[in-house]
This record gives sequence, C-alpha cells and structure tokens, in this order.
Amino acid sequence: KPTDKLFGGLLAAGFDEESCLSRYQSVLYRKTSPFKASPYLISKLRNYEQLHKRCGPNTQPYNAAVEQLRSGQSVSSSSTDCKYIVWVCYSGLGNRILTLASVFLYALLTDRVLLVDRGKDMANLFCEPFPEKSWFLPLNFPITNKFDSFGQKSPESYGNMLKKNIIKASTESLPSYLYLHLAHDYDDHDKLFFCDEEQALLNKVPWLIMKTDNYFVPSLFLMSSFEHELIMLFPEKETIFHHLGRYLFHPTNQVWGLITRYYKAYLAKADERIGIQVRTFDSGPGPYQYVNDQISACTQGEKLLPAVDAKGRIVPPSENSKLKAVLMTSLVSGYFENVKNTYWEHPTVTGDIIGVHQPSHEEKQQTEKPLHNMKAWAEMYLLSLSDELVTSAWSTFGYVAQGLGGLKPWILYKSENQTTPNPPCQRAMSMEPCFHAPPFYDCKAKKGIDTGKVVPHVRHCEDISWGLKVVDSQDEL
Amino acid sequence: KPTDKLFGGLLAAGFDEESCLSRYQSVLYRKTSPFKASPYLISKLRNYEQLHKRCGPNTQPYNAAVEQLRSGQSVSSSSTDCKYIVWVCYSGLGNRILTLASVFLYALLTDRVLLVDRGKDMANLFCEPFPEKSWFLPLNFPITNKFDSFGQKSPESYGNMLKKNIIKASTESLPSYLYLHLAHDYDDHDKLFFCDEEQALLNKVPWLIMKTDNYFVPSLFLMSSFEHELIMLFPEKETIFHHLGRYLFHPTNQVWGLITRYYKAYLAKADERIGIQVRTFDSGPGPYQYVNDQISACTQGEKLLPAVDAKGRIVPPSENSKLKAVLMTSLVSGYFENVKNTYWEHPTVTGDIIGVHQPSHEEKQQTEKPLHNMKAWAEMYLLSLSDELVTSAWSTFGYVAQGLGGLKPWILYKSENQTTPNPPCQRAMSMEPCFHAPPFYDCKAKKGIDTGKVVPHVRHCEDISWGLKVVDSQDEL
Ligand SMILES: Nc1nc2c(ncn2[C@@H]2O[C@H](COP(=O)(O)OP(=O)(O)O)[C@@H](O)[C@H]2O)c(=O)[nH]1
Ligand SMILES: Nc1nc2c(ncn2[C@@H]2O[C@H](COP(=O)(O)OP(=O)(O)O)[C@@H](O)[C@H]2O)c(=O)[nH]1
Repeated sequence: KPTDKLFGGLLAAGFDEESCLSRYQSVLYRKTSPFKASPYLISKLRNYEQLHKRCGPNTQPYNAAVEQLRSGQSVSSSSTDCKYIVWVCYSGLGNRILTLASVFLYALLTDRVLLVDRGKDMANLFCEPFPEKSWFLPLNFPITNKFDSFGQKSPESYGNMLKKNIIKASTESLPSYLYLHLAHDYDDHDKLFFCDEEQALLNKVPWLIMKTDNYFVPSLFLMSSFEHELIMLFPEKETIFHHLGRYLFHPTNQVWGLITRYYKAYLAKADERIGIQVRTFDSGPGPYQYVNDQISACTQGEKLLPAVDAKGRIVPPSENSKLKAVLMTSLVSGYFENVKNTYWEHPTVTGDIIGVHQPSHEEKQQTEKPLHNMKAWAEMYLLSLSDELVTSAWSTFGYVAQGLGGLKPWILYKSENQTTPNPPCQRAMSMEPCFHAPPFYDCKAKKGIDTGKVVPHVRHCEDISWGLKVVDSQDEL
Repeated sequence: KPTDKLFGGLLAAGFDEESCLSRYQSVLYRKTSPFKASPYLISKLRNYEQLHKRCGPNTQPYNAAVEQLRSGQSVSSSSTDCKYIVWVCYSGLGNRILTLASVFLYALLTDRVLLVDRGKDMANLFCEPFPEKSWFLPLNFPITNKFDSFGQKSPESYGNMLKKNIIKASTESLPSYLYLHLAHDYDDHDKLFFCDEEQALLNKVPWLIMKTDNYFVPSLFLMSSFEHELIMLFPEKETIFHHLGRYLFHPTNQVWGLITRYYKAYLAKADERIGIQVRTFDSGPGPYQYVNDQISACTQGEKLLPAVDAKGRIVPPSENSKLKAVLMTSLVSGYFENVKNTYWEHPTVTGDIIGVHQPSHEEKQQTEKPLHNMKAWAEMYLLSLSDELVTSAWSTFGYVAQGLGGLKPWILYKSENQTTPNPPCQRAMSMEPCFHAPPFYDCKAKKGIDTGKVVPHVRHCEDISWGLKVVDSQDEL
C-alpha cells in the first residue's frame, strides 16, 4: 500500500479528499518519482500557501487592492500589502498548463499572489491547489472584460508603455496595474520583462495581468535577480515543471474519472506502457504516410516496440514475452490505426504482444465542446503514466505529459516537406519543456546574444533550434 | 493444463500440429463446451474420414469418377464406387461457413465425399479438416469454369430438369452430374431437393454440384429418409452446427495469428468478455442513432453491461467490481465509438470497468482485399470466445459466432423504419443457425404446409418469422 500520498511533502495536507480525488489517488497510478522536491522548495510552497491564504480572494488585503484597481489611482511603492499576478486564460490546454506553471514560479520568485482567470473551463479541469483560498480570480474582478482585448498593441501593455516612454525605472507614480504581453508575437519592448532592471519597476505595481503562451522559465534562469533562488529551489534543475506541475495540476473529479476508467479498462493489466503523442503541424489534417513511417522507424529503431515479422512466422511466446500497451493520442485516428493494424496483422519478432489504444480522435481543436479539453487533459495525464514516452516536436501537449511523468521522451522531429526525418526521433536531454520564443538580448550589454550559450544549464531545445530549455548541467554541452 | 485437445474425440488425431496450430491450440482459448459429441457422431466422422481417404482427390476412384464426368457419359446406378458433392464457393463468409457445414452433413447422410471449391480464398482461411486427403477440389477439375455461370436458370440444374421433365424418378440413364441450386432465389422445383423421393434419384448421380447460401439443415430434419439418422447423430439437437463447425473449421495459421494476437492484446486479461456483433441491412452505411439506442437498451436491459451514472458519481470499486471487455464487430466504427465513449465518459452504477474493442471497420464488404475475409473470420471466431454474445438479426456472421461458441445469443431485432424495436432484443431459444428460405411444402400430400409446425424441434426463428431452426424439444413450443 502506498503511503506517501503527498509526494514527499510537495503537496499540502488538509484538503477534503472527496472534493479532489486525484490529489490523493494519483499515487495509485504513478510510479514514485525518482526526483524529490528540495526542502527549500517545500518550505517556499508552504510560505506561498500562507501568503495565498492571507491575500487570496475576498480577504481584506484583496478587497483593498481591488478597490485601488477600481479607483484607477496610481500607486507609490509601499501603498499595498499584497501584490498579485493574474494569469489570463489563453491558447491551447498544453500551453495553458505550461504558462500557469511559469507564472506561478514567477509569483513565487516575486512574492506575488497568483490568481487564475477561469476562462470557459479552467474550473472544470483543475482542482484548487492551495488550501482554504481559491486560486480563481473572483468573477466580479473589475477588469476581466478587458482580458480579451489585451494584446501586443494594447496601450496598457508594459512593452508599449516603455516604447512610448510613458513609464521608466525612475517613474514614481505607477499605474495600479500593468498588462504583460508574453505571447509568441511579443516584441523587443515586451521582452524587456526578462531584464532585472525592469523587474525592479514591476515589483512596485500591485496588479500584473499576464497573457502568455510560452513556458518562459528558462529565461528566468538567465536573470541575476532570480538565478540564485532558482538554483536553491531546484537543485535538480530539470525538475522545475515536474515538481510545480505535480503541485499545481490536479484533475477535477470528472477528469479523474476519465483518467482512471481509461487506465483500468485499457492500460492497467499490461506489463509495460508506451505513450505515443502524435501532433502534426501540417496544413492538412492527415494522416500522412511519412508520419506512419516516422512512428515505426522511431519506436522500432529505439527498441520501444518490437519489429514485426513480415512473413508472419509466429514466435512461440517465451518466458520473457510481454504484453505492452501502447497509448496513442492524436487529433486523428489514422496513426493509431496504422500501429494497431501492424501489430494485429503481424507477429512480433520477440513474441511480445502489443495492444494499441487511443482514447479520442477529436479531428480538430474544438474548445467549445465541454468534454473536449477534459479529454485533452485526461490524455496528457494518461501519457504521463507511461513507462516510455514518444512525443511530437513543438507540442506543449507532449511537454506536459513528459514533465508530469518525469520522463525524458523520444521526440519525433518535425518534418520538412512531408518526408520522414532521419533520424526520425531523438531522446530528450531533459524532461523540461522548451521555451519556444525566448529573447536573445543581453540586458546589461544592451545587445543581442545567443541566450542558449550563456550558462550550461540553459540550452537550445532538441526540437526547436532557437528555443531554450533547462537541463541538468552534468549533461555535456 | 488442458489435455483434451481433440474435443472429446470429435477431432481426428494424427495431424501435423505446426501446419494448423488452431486445431490444437483452440482449447487454450475456448471454455470446454458443455455439449459432448455423441459416440455415434464420432464414429460417423471416423467413417467419413476413411471414405474421404479412399475416394478423395487423386485417388483411383476419384480419377475414375472424374473420367466419367469428363466423358459426359450417362450412368446407371451401380457404375461408380464413390459419389461426390461439390460445394461451390458463393456469398459472404458467414454464409459460406454455414452452407459448408450443411453440405458436409448432407454428405454424411448420403455417403458422399465433400469437395470444396476453393474460390479466391478458402484455402487461406481454413485448414484441411480431414486427415491425409485434401478437401479442396483439385484445380484441374473439369467443370470448375462452369461454376460461375451456374444459377437458377441453368439447364444443368436439377430443378430445371424436373420442370422440363428431362428427368424423373423412373429415369434409368442419369447424367454424370447435376447442379443443385439451393440459393435464396431458388424456385419450387429446386426445392423438391427436400423431398425423399427426389433424394432417391439424386442418390444415383455420382457428382452433385451445389450452390447455396442457406443453412438448410432444419429442413433435412423434416425428411423421413434423414430424420432418424439425424436424431441418432445429434441427441442434443441444437448442437448440429456447434459440433460440425468445430470439427470442420480450423483457422489457418495466418488467421490464427490474427485471433490469438487480438485475444491476448485486448481480451485475455478481462474478468468477462461480451461480444456484440452489429450488422445492419439498411440502405445507408450508418451509423444510425436508433441502433446505438438499441444496443444500449439491450445490453443494459438484459444486464449484460451495467448502466452508467449520468451525473458522473463515481462508485468506489468494490470486491465484486469486474473488468469487462466488450468485443464489438461491425463494418463501421460508429457503434463501437458510442459504446466506448459511454463507458469512458461516465462511471458505471456497479463500479465495473468496461473496455470496448473493435478489431476492424472495413466500411463495406470487400472480398478482393486479401486480409478482408481473414479479418471477418478472425472476428467471428473471437466473438465465439465471448462469455455472453449479442448478435444482429438476419446475420449469418453472428450465427457462426454463436454456433462455434456454443452460445445462445441475445438477438438485436431487425428494425422497421429506422426506429429502435421494442423490446430491442431477445434471447435465442437455441444456438442453431436459422434457415432463411425454407420450403413450405408437404412432399407426400403435395401441398403447402407450415414447416415450422410439423415437429417440436424445428421451429420458426426468433429473427425471421418464416425461417426455420432446430431447437431442443424440451424448450416449450
Ligand atoms: N484530445 C486530444 N486533443 C488534442 C490532441 N492534440 C491536440 N489536441 C487539442 O488541440 C489543442 C492543442 O493545443 P495545446 O494543448 O496547447 O498543444 P500544442 O498545440 O500541441 O502545443 C489541445 O489543447 C487539444 O484541445 C490529442 O492528442 N488529444
Ligand atoms: N471484418 C468484418 N467484416 C464484416 C462484418 N460484418 C460484415 N462483414 C463483411 O461482410 C460479409 C457479410 O457476409 P456474411 O459473412 O455472409 O454475413 P451476413 O451477410 O451478415 O449474413 C462478411 O463476410 C464480411 O466480409 C464485421 O463485423 N467485421
């Protein structure tokens, strides 16, 4: 019987079990992580929980801060007790999970309270992670109706204010809130967020509202104001999302039902579970033959799955023959059908038996369907329960699965011109997600640099040459 | 370890195991049948095997009989030693399996040697059932090229010869072969096959060539020349196809690979296996909502599958909670998707976990694809390994599964006007297949009668009101 329901103290005690079964039952499905959260991280989280309890929704400091926001008054640095960062619901679910973790880490580093815009469905997907006080932004928050219009060109954005010189480090009277635009289309002024000097200014603003679709943690490592703290929090550097993800993201009971029923019906009895996440970014919906070829070249080449005997010679099952369950996720069913038929129509050369499963094929991203994102979330979680994982380049959906699972996946390279890349895949050097659109700027020297070459533990990603990811520095450069 | 590899003597010993693994391995997958073949049936089969060995392909008597056929000479009753019935490959695979069993039974009753036209793919589907001599008609059989043209209007057909008075009981000089047309479009003259007097004449013809898509066994029971022998052979009357099917139909190694791999990958670990065979005869391909409704009304109404809790309340799994594997077969995937999603999206009221599996969805009958009929055969066989079976009215595909499995299925009624029938299904009274187009004629009285009311063990079918099937007479009329 597993006893460590709280992941070695990562999770706070004292929640109502029934209200969020996944928090306590996940130990029944996950292998124990080889990575332990550091005592410093754990105490930081406990402190955060205290802060959240003190400053969270509908507390006196919250009400005061909202009052100030509503009044539109400008503020001097000492005028508020609690400071907030609001995560605006934006982009696909994989992206959202990564950005929420990034924003939470930023909150930890800057002593802010994280509040989550629930968008259409966040409350149906995730349990409350903090004891006692909700992490959701109250529905009567005064400027929620502006969130949709916030964008790269918004006058409220910090980048635009810098560009127009409305604000600068020496400004005394600061606005009660600033909009931070850290989405893929952000410009050089928006990117000044990653400079220590600007952080000093931001630190004085009680409300920060952030819209992002990027896992921006790697660039925080390059900032001297955060670097030391980050290294203390995460002595195993590639575990940032792994720990924060397991701390923050607990599927609601409805999603947990999807996860546990699927696991028990299709995966539990296998000797080994292999996850294959297929996401293509071609213009058409597929399926494409070159992707079929890539999947089999990768899984068989890397010995994740056995080869088949084209002549159909049946190998008598041996003592070592295993039942392997392949969990595939994809918007379409074609890749699944191909793998499934391969192992149905032909025997394996090892005598292993391969069952292939795909929970859904939603055909396209369709966030309006109530179950759509629940299924997406359930599938990321199910992938994270695999023993071995294959993911698709560029996809945050896969990053979430690898991070939660503590897995270094084999990444299926993005294809050029619809041909199978050679090699078809590569083992990731770290389980951290990739920051797809990092800045390439040296704030002190005020010039461009290759930010993937500054420190050994922040490198370019395997799947996106200009991206940045955190790795453990014992890996060679 | 199961030891009775030969089904209590039903199967002959002395085959090469490697050449047909299914013959000996099926005991590993099938529950022991509660029905035992009678000693009389077993000795009849052993005698048949002797006959087949003596008269089979390329023996001296075979060569002599073929010579006579080639010469086109008419024959007197005593001129040949061995007599033959040739089964012509015709219709869908379920139909073929049923007719082949019917024709074999007719061969047993009339001391004929069964020879099987291999069509395009029979040899890829079925192992040799008789020791030493093949059951396949040699490729150089003189009139194989006529088989395609044989039909209801053929001058060679016995029915037409009777109609035109070319032949009658007193005819002394008989042709060396006759074509017997017993397909769905046969007429009253063709149907005289089921009269004892005509059998006396047919008995003298060395070669009978039969094309049929009907399981005509029930009408043999109504013929005084066969009735006694049939009752001796099958004291448990509803086991005719069950025993003959298990005796005759052994999947080839390639098909056996499909069966065993699928079973091990998807079905073996479940506590219970439920087969659901969905075949619609609507004009469009479906899926139709009324069929989805019918499947859930039947399976839940008959407690084959649990109801789901629409509110999503999760029942904690109890001691008695089971993992049930549902095996669905259908040309389309829509019905499978519906059942699968139902049990993924909702918890069951019992806490049972339901996994749903469908091997293929071929969209339409496409006999030209080499694997198509192999998969159809594998699926019939897999269905027959279920603990409980749901079949579709009218479908011989389902009859094969129920008969081989020794299962009384729940039959999904055929719908009128695309509405869900009420009740949606009924438990079959016997596991025997239904004869879809029986004659309604009293040969002695020379008048029409209701052949479903003559003896208690031949009755109208559950799924086709005018069809006939054999039941055990302890069932009430
Ligand atoms: N259920 C399901 N949805 C998917 C899958 N792949 C993509 N989607 C949908 O498409 C969205 C993709 O956005 P995101 O999760 O941000 O991942 P990314 O675009 O691959 O980085 C998901 O949130 C889902 O809504 C899949 O394999 N399964
Ligand atoms: N693989 C597969 N083929 C099917 C299925 N249902 C029908 N077919 C195909 O359609 C044919 C139907 O003919 P038959 O077997 O005689 O069954 P019937 O028409 O239902 O009496 C089969 O032989 C297959 O080729 C199915 O569930 N699975």
